Amino acid sequence: MSIHEACGVFGAISPQRKDLARLTYYGLYALQHRGQESCGIVVDDDGLFYSHKDLGLVGDVFSKEDLDRMPASTMAVGHVRYSTTGEKVRANCQPIEVNHQKGKLALAHNGNLTNDDKLRDKLELNGAIFHTTSDTETIAYIITGERLKTGSIEDAVSQAMDVIEGAYSMVVMSAAKIMAIRDPYGFRPLCYGKTADGTYVIASESCALQAVGAEFIRDILPGEILVFSTDGSITSRREHCGTKPRQSCIFEQIYFARPDSIIDGIPIHQARVNAGRALAKAHPVEADAVIGVPDSGLNAAIGYAQESGIPYSIGMIKNKYIARTFISPSQRERDNQVHIKLNPISSIIKGKRVVLVDDSIVRGTTSRRLVTMMRDAGATEVHMRVSAPPFLHPCYYGVDIDSEDNLIAAHHSVDEICEMIGADSLGFLPIEDLKVLSPALDYCAGCFDGRYATAVSPNHRKNRFSTPLSQREKKSKK
Amino acid sequence: MSIHEACGVFGAISPQRKDLARLTYYGLYALQHRGQESCGIVVDDDGLFYSHKDLGLVGDVFSKEDLDRMPASTMAVGHVRYSTTGEKVRANCQPIEVNHQKGKLALAHNGNLTNDDKLRDKLELNGAIFHTTSDTETIAYIITGERLKTGSIEDAVSQAMDVIEGAYSMVVMSAAKIMAIRDPYGFRPLCYGKTADGTYVIASESCALQAVGAEFIRDILPGEILVFSTDGSITSRREHCGTKPRQSCIFEQIYFARPDSIIDGIPIHQARVNAGRALAKAHPVEADAVIGVPDSGLNAAIGYAQESGIPYSIGMIKNKYIARTFISPSQRERDNQVHIKLNPISSIIKGKRVVLVDDSIVRGTTSRRLVTMMRDAGATEVHMRVSAPPFLHPCYYGVDIDSEDNLIAAHHSVDEICEMIGADSLGFLPIEDLKVLSPALDYCAGCFDGRYATAVSPNHRKNRFSTPLSQREKKSKK
Amino acid sequence: MSIHEACGVFGAISPQRKDLARLTYYGLYALQHRGQESCGIVVDDDGLFYSHKDLGLVGDVFSKEDLDRMPASTMAVGHVRYSTTGEKVRANCQPIEVNHQKGKLALAHNGNLTNDDKLRDKLELNGAIFHTTSDTETIAYIITGERLKTGSIEDAVSQAMDVIEGAYSMVVMSAAKIMAIRDPYGFRPLCYGKTADGTYVIASESCALQAVGAEFIRDILPGEILVFSTDGSITSRREHCGTKPRQSCIFEQIYFARPDSIIDGIPIHQARVNAGRALAKAHPVEADAVIGVPDSGLNAAIGYAQESGIPYSIGMIKNKYIARTFISPSQRERDNQVHIKLNPISSIIKGKRVVLVDDSIVRGTTSRRLVTMMRDAGATEVHMRVSAPPFLHPCYYGVDIDSEDNLIAAHHSVDEICEMIGADSLGFLPIEDLKVLSPALDYCAGCFDGRYATAVSPNHRKNRFSTPLSQREKKSKK
Amino acid sequence: MSIHEACGVFGAISPQRKDLARLTYYGLYALQHRGQESCGIVVDDDGLFYSHKDLGLVGDVFSKEDLDRMPASTMAVGHVRYSTTGEKVRANCQPIEVNHQKGKLALAHNGNLTNDDKLRDKLELNGAIFHTTSDTETIAYIITGERLKTGSIEDAVSQAMDVIEGAYSMVVMSAAKIMAIRDPYGFRPLCYGKTADGTYVIASESCALQAVGAEFIRDILPGEILVFSTDGSITSRREHCGTKPRQSCIFEQIYFARPDSIIDGIPIHQARVNAGRALAKAHPVEADAVIGVPDSGLNAAIGYAQESGIPYSIGMIKNKYIARTFISPSQRERDNQVHIKLNPISSIIKGKRVVLVDDSIVRGTTSRRLVTMMRDAGATEVHMRVSAPPFLHPCYYGVDIDSEDNLIAAHHSVDEICEMIGADSLGFLPIEDLKVLSPALDYCAGCFDGRYATAVSPNHRKNRFSTPLSQREKKSKK
Repeated sequence: MSIHEACGVFGAISPQRKDLARLTYYGLYALQHRGQESCGIVVDDDGLFYSHKDLGLVGDVFSKEDLDRMPASTMAVGHVRYSTTGEKVRANCQPIEVNHQKGKLALAHNGNLTNDDKLRDKLELNGAIFHTTSDTETIAYIITGERLKTGSIEDAVSQAMDVIEGAYSMVVMSAAKIMAIRDPYGFRPLCYGKTADGTYVIASESCALQAVGAEFIRDILPGEILVFSTDGSITSRREHCGTKPRQSCIFEQIYFARPDSIIDGIPIHQARVNAGRALAKAHPVEADAVIGVPDSGLNAAIGYAQESGIPYSIGMIKNKYIARTFISPSQRERDNQVHIKLNPISSIIKGKRVVLVDDSIVRGTTSRRLVTMMRDAGATEVHMRVSAPPFLHPCYYGVDIDSEDNLIAAHHSVDEICEMIGADSLGFLPIEDLKVLSPALDYCAGCFDGRYATAVSPNHRKNRFSTPLSQREKKSKK
Repeated sequence: MSIHEACGVFGAISPQRKDLARLTYYGLYALQHRGQESCGIVVDDDGLFYSHKDLGLVGDVFSKEDLDRMPASTMAVGHVRYSTTGEKVRANCQPIEVNHQKGKLALAHNGNLTNDDKLRDKLELNGAIFHTTSDTETIAYIITGERLKTGSIEDAVSQAMDVIEGAYSMVVMSAAKIMAIRDPYGFRPLCYGKTADGTYVIASESCALQAVGAEFIRDILPGEILVFSTDGSITSRREHCGTKPRQSCIFEQIYFARPDSIIDGIPIHQARVNAGRALAKAHPVEADAVIGVPDSGLNAAIGYAQESGIPYSIGMIKNKYIARTFISPSQRERDNQVHIKLNPISSIIKGKRVVLVDDSIVRGTTSRRLVTMMRDAGATEVHMRVSAPPFLHPCYYGVDIDSEDNLIAAHHSVDEICEMIGADSLGFLPIEDLKVLSPALDYCAGCFDGRYATAVSPNHRKNRFSTPLSQREKKSKK
Repeated sequence: MSIHEACGVFGAISPQRKDLARLTYYGLYALQHRGQESCGIVVDDDGLFYSHKDLGLVGDVFSKEDLDRMPASTMAVGHVRYSTTGEKVRANCQPIEVNHQKGKLALAHNGNLTNDDKLRDKLELNGAIFHTTSDTETIAYIITGERLKTGSIEDAVSQAMDVIEGAYSMVVMSAAKIMAIRDPYGFRPLCYGKTADGTYVIASESCALQAVGAEFIRDILPGEILVFSTDGSITSRREHCGTKPRQSCIFEQIYFARPDSIIDGIPIHQARVNAGRALAKAHPVEADAVIGVPDSGLNAAIGYAQESGIPYSIGMIKNKYIARTFISPSQRERDNQVHIKLNPISSIIKGKRVVLVDDSIVRGTTSRRLVTMMRDAGATEVHMRVSAPPFLHPCYYGVDIDSEDNLIAAHHSVDEICEMIGADSLGFLPIEDLKVLSPALDYCAGCFDGRYATAVSPNHRKNRFSTPLSQREKKSKK
Repeated sequence: MSIHEACGVFGAISPQRKDLARLTYYGLYALQHRGQESCGIVVDDDGLFYSHKDLGLVGDVFSKEDLDRMPASTMAVGHVRYSTTGEKVRANCQPIEVNHQKGKLALAHNGNLTNDDKLRDKLELNGAIFHTTSDTETIAYIITGERLKTGSIEDAVSQAMDVIEGAYSMVVMSAAKIMAIRDPYGFRPLCYGKTADGTYVIASESCALQAVGAEFIRDILPGEILVFSTDGSITSRREHCGTKPRQSCIFEQIYFARPDSIIDGIPIHQARVNAGRALAKAHPVEADAVIGVPDSGLNAAIGYAQESGIPYSIGMIKNKYIARTFISPSQRERDNQVHIKLNPISSIIKGKRVVLVDDSIVRGTTSRRLVTMMRDAGATEVHMRVSAPPFLHPCYYGVDIDSEDNLIAAHHSVDEICEMIGADSLGFLPIEDLKVLSPALDYCAGCFDGRYATAVSPNHRKNRFSTPLSQREKKSKK
């Protein structure tokens, strides 16, 4: 699927100096699915920050030498990024660092402010110069401004939370503390845990805690500021907790989060199996095999198979070597049945009635290609099942969903889509069944139902900024 | 698993000039699992060869510019390599090219000669200088020598087949033809097909035919020389066919080949499902969940689940971003439960009796770690099932199996291994059940039963060659 | 010699769109001697800025593709940098760009503010966050702040000049204009010219005008703001002209500027020949050959030879391939007479009494090595002549002179230095003879006489900022 | 000038293990002017060779890590290459290594065989496969063939010298010895020396001995094989000495060799000064300044000035940052007086009658541009003087001179050339004055007089080999 999450954040704090850069490296590896555009680590060395950030995957940006050069430390923060606001340029790599006479800060942010434009305008009129196009810099300015009025970084953060609006799960490192912060709605996940040797670890998802051998303790509460000190103490500030209705993003459950994570108490793999079961109840069909689209459709396919009793099968092989540099086939090559990313296992499909389970339909082009592939491999019937409701609306809280113009479901009925993708039948997860993904807690399903908790304004600033060469189309010269 | 295949080969020939470099690029992408060390493409341009080869994955070695620079052509050969003989150096990248007054050749070879040392000695005593440590160069010398005695390249290849011994599936391009060659035993796979627009395509596995939209025609026969001309004609020379007993490598079915390939008539995914079923019959157990070790254990796990009736589950998540540059955790970090490559889904495993299916046990260290991981995630029992017999012997035909010293099964009984890896029970595929993987054809199972079709001699030449810096340990200087 | 200039600046403006990126590339190549650490070009495309900047030499940072991608434009600014303040990090690469609702700016700056610390403190207390350690960012903030009070960018620049103190020659590009600005003292050079096809070109030195085929028009006056518009008009604002005594840096004449430049009316090569003549008058000696230390001592050596009548000779060869990546010999290797950078021509030196002319002595180690090299090559006498007075004081205006601690002349008499370097005699240019380098205009000779035109304060902020990994020594980890 | 030398060779042998890789690195730096295309070092470690070679300059190919990885050793050979035969491809990088059961060899070769084609044909018909297009591989085959007939590597080399014809100065390392070999005509230079700590050093030019602190001992004799052992002994085999008339390349004296080298007893700088003096006698003129074209015309310019009494001046500045990646100005830009590589010093030239001294005229385009540059800078007269006779013929011994078609002097009289380049007068060094460059020894002046010591045949094999992508023009695809 082509929908991207904004970011993943990570933090670690230990009473003793340790190789926290390396621990953060492993944590970011586990969060890589949340952002593949850039990444970075900042560690503290007695008040001096050392950082390494660049465009690229964690494995490309950090060499062994890079990690070895970073000093042993008691605090570190890390970030993986996919840009929803701000461009794909080096300057936008996070964690963002602030060097100011009132103290140093490093910020790693997942989410999207909805009043960024208004705040930027005001800051610029007071003399501020922005160096990035990221709303994280706006947060840095607001916190710095509040810090000038008050001595305490916690107070500054708390006061900043009165001003900034939207989705933000953040890890903020000052010269002496690390803070884990989650917006009052709790849009994006954030949790923390502890390793056997006493290092506290904060991460967007619990899979990153497991990656570094830390035991999960709990999720950060919506509106909470959790302050970790190097002496091992933790303080929770909850003045913003409970001030807003919970709006945890349901798309984390459906697609973003790793199946091995547990978010706000919900085991993701199980939630998706449940969605598959609900899908089977809502849209049953007679068939011979249930096939999940790798990798994101596999969990729901198992649920569908369990509920329906139709055998679960592996029907497609995903090429695991396709990298960023892959030269995609042209339309003509694809028409000629060039199957590089996904290839059907004909021996499984031939002569069968197939239920094909995927987690979403955005433009419909991928689904059409998958259905065709199944038929070419000999499927006698292809029944498409989608473990999410139809996408109808944009997201303003950090998910990069295509504009409405490109959302097939915004312009066509389910029957029309079924015909367009060439399936024998098509069924989406009913919107009321989203609750099987999050039985106990309220959630934001704005991309499906168009209801948003905060006021939103389009981001119209992008063209104010210079475009780096790598982003530009070649332009002929006179 | 840590066992590596030698190589994958690819060839394409068309009556009209086409972008065969790009077609070969896609073919190599589909064969990448057969060799990740180096790769290369050579295309013909009216008798001039243009080549691009280097160490690295296909996606790294070939940029869009590289492909765009290669001329449209009527013939191309490609190769992906993992070195079983010869070092990991640029000079060993294939296809190997020969420029000789009798004509040009480009050779792409999968397999391993068993009389390479003897042939090299003889050639050197006649004045030959070897520039690589690869046995493919030996083949090139033999063919060139034969070509000096006879006018025809086909005759030279045929006569070379009287001299070279061992495993070889090859694609050889001369200035006018492409030949697909398979040794008389048929150790390594090789097949061909045709695209809708008339391009013949040769590949190690049928998945590479599908990758480029070609329809599978048939496997090359053991001992066959199939000669393709640019006029579209195909000639089969079969003077070596049937001269030896078929010895197709059974480990292709078990592990190497992609599940979506069909080799010598056997659909690989189905063969592995069958092995899983046989395993369930041979080693049944009461349990709550069957979990396959991703990715190579998944197919057999489905078979085990089907036969046993125990539900198939996804119990581990494999990090798909782990790249060549990944900095592996230290032993201490692994002891601290750092789970980066594979992470268990606790909600699935907790409180369950688990059947864990993998495709092999080499040293036992990986299995021990997996069993521990299951227990830490809450499994009450862990029953290890292996969809192959125990490894007891080296392979001389192109598979990089650890020396006997490191093969746990060569030194320990099944019960001992079970205890060493900490499982509650352990079962291997019985050696007599290998036939479920290849019901119709004879096969080589030398790594399991120690029976080899040809005389073998150890490769003791490696230290004759200079070691490139990248391969050496740092040595202190006086 | 190991003294470094801060920077070189370049700008171009044309009524028609042209490939000004390429023109700027050539201009920066001609200014490369003024800064080898980083470089950058920003071009305007109808109000959008396109930039390319990085660490490295012009030839390394800009590929043909990079230049081709930059759009045809009517305005461009460029910069080469050696850091005197601020670290060698990507963020400090210039031109610095400001994106602000009041308008865009790109600044290229040569020089050094002397009240930077004070200004930064004040700006930070008003909420500013600095992203670089360069004083150019301070200038950007001051101009932006003034611009908020006034509509006109020229007024903002003029008011900023009331606030900033020290040395600055700048090219500032707004969305509609380019400004060439020189501080009221005129510390650093700046001039402009015009190409045959009507492009105005601004550059630190006239050699960069010649490099792009532009005819020199005149130097920017101390304190002048020269405003170029794309309609071809030029306006001079002179409200700061004549408000301060001229303090043109005499070390530009002695060392920094290229011999083919003409600065403030002074042809540099001729000035250095004159210094060589004055040196011969002040410190005559009987000898057989005058040898200049390549490349910077050659001009004065010719003057010394002309005045003294002693033949000028080429006595040393400089290896022209020594690049940034050169692995310097160890002390032991140097003691063993390893001569890679400079090698004597023994046939010239053997049996001769040599006058060796260099342009400065900083620590004395280079001079000692040169004298030894001459003796080893057979010189019977070595008379060292230096075409500048002894360095006694630091520079606060953009020249990277070693701290006083390392200046040999600050701690030793001429006789002592002569003995330390092993010469038979030693003579410096008398300080009163500096006027031969700048007969008509006043100059700053602070590094020789300790007299500075402005109040100065040490830069103590550097450690406030995080250190990039590339700058750090490896630190062992616990 | 655009004429290129073939190569530079280097060798070192020491009784004790030392960091000879680094010593060789410094030696190659000093020989870089002899070849800028590729370079390489091979060191011996108790019979195992370790090598590092690649396309590029010494400073680019060898990082500190590369050198550190090479083991301490008692023998090393190095090479810098500019291809006169063979293409610019990785495979052609030297030293060439041979791994053969009769023993290992590493060959570094400067020169050009004149019977390479004939030898290759014969070798191929005996079964040889060539992997490079370099004639050095031919030498390797011949030596290896002879070695099979005889036990001794020295005998094999000696017998090979009966077979190969043309120019060759070589350093050959076997597992136990290093041999310095010079062809019987002595076309290319080769000498050796010794460091204070007992390391023998062999180099193409004496400047490389000085670079590593070695004292010059003597030149290798034409036809000599000088055998160095690690026990410190040296043996000279002279069976080929004196069998041919000496034919030392006079163009080494004129242009190739570094001015600080002494070749066959001739100090190069002095030889060029002498040529300048002879030029002044042969072609006197009334003028105000003698200006040498940097860098190669400077030595002769000094001689011209000394003889004529006209003052020597520095009249042009060469940009020392122009690197391999420099994007050259277009013709239109050059017409617009874009002066990046060379820029005149107008203050020196204006109003003067100038004698411009260069070392050769090949096509005449550079000379025309230089004359125009002088006039544009205000010269009232420009008298061109060339310190070599006119080029009339190709070189077959390792110098890359343009084909006769492009040699202006092959088609035009001196008067015509003078008019074509726009000079007021033009004078070449009379061919009979070449003797001032080599008073005591015979020399080859084939490029001037067309007389060659050996039979020559054009190299017509180049198109037999595949072209690497980097060398090809982009070709559109169907």
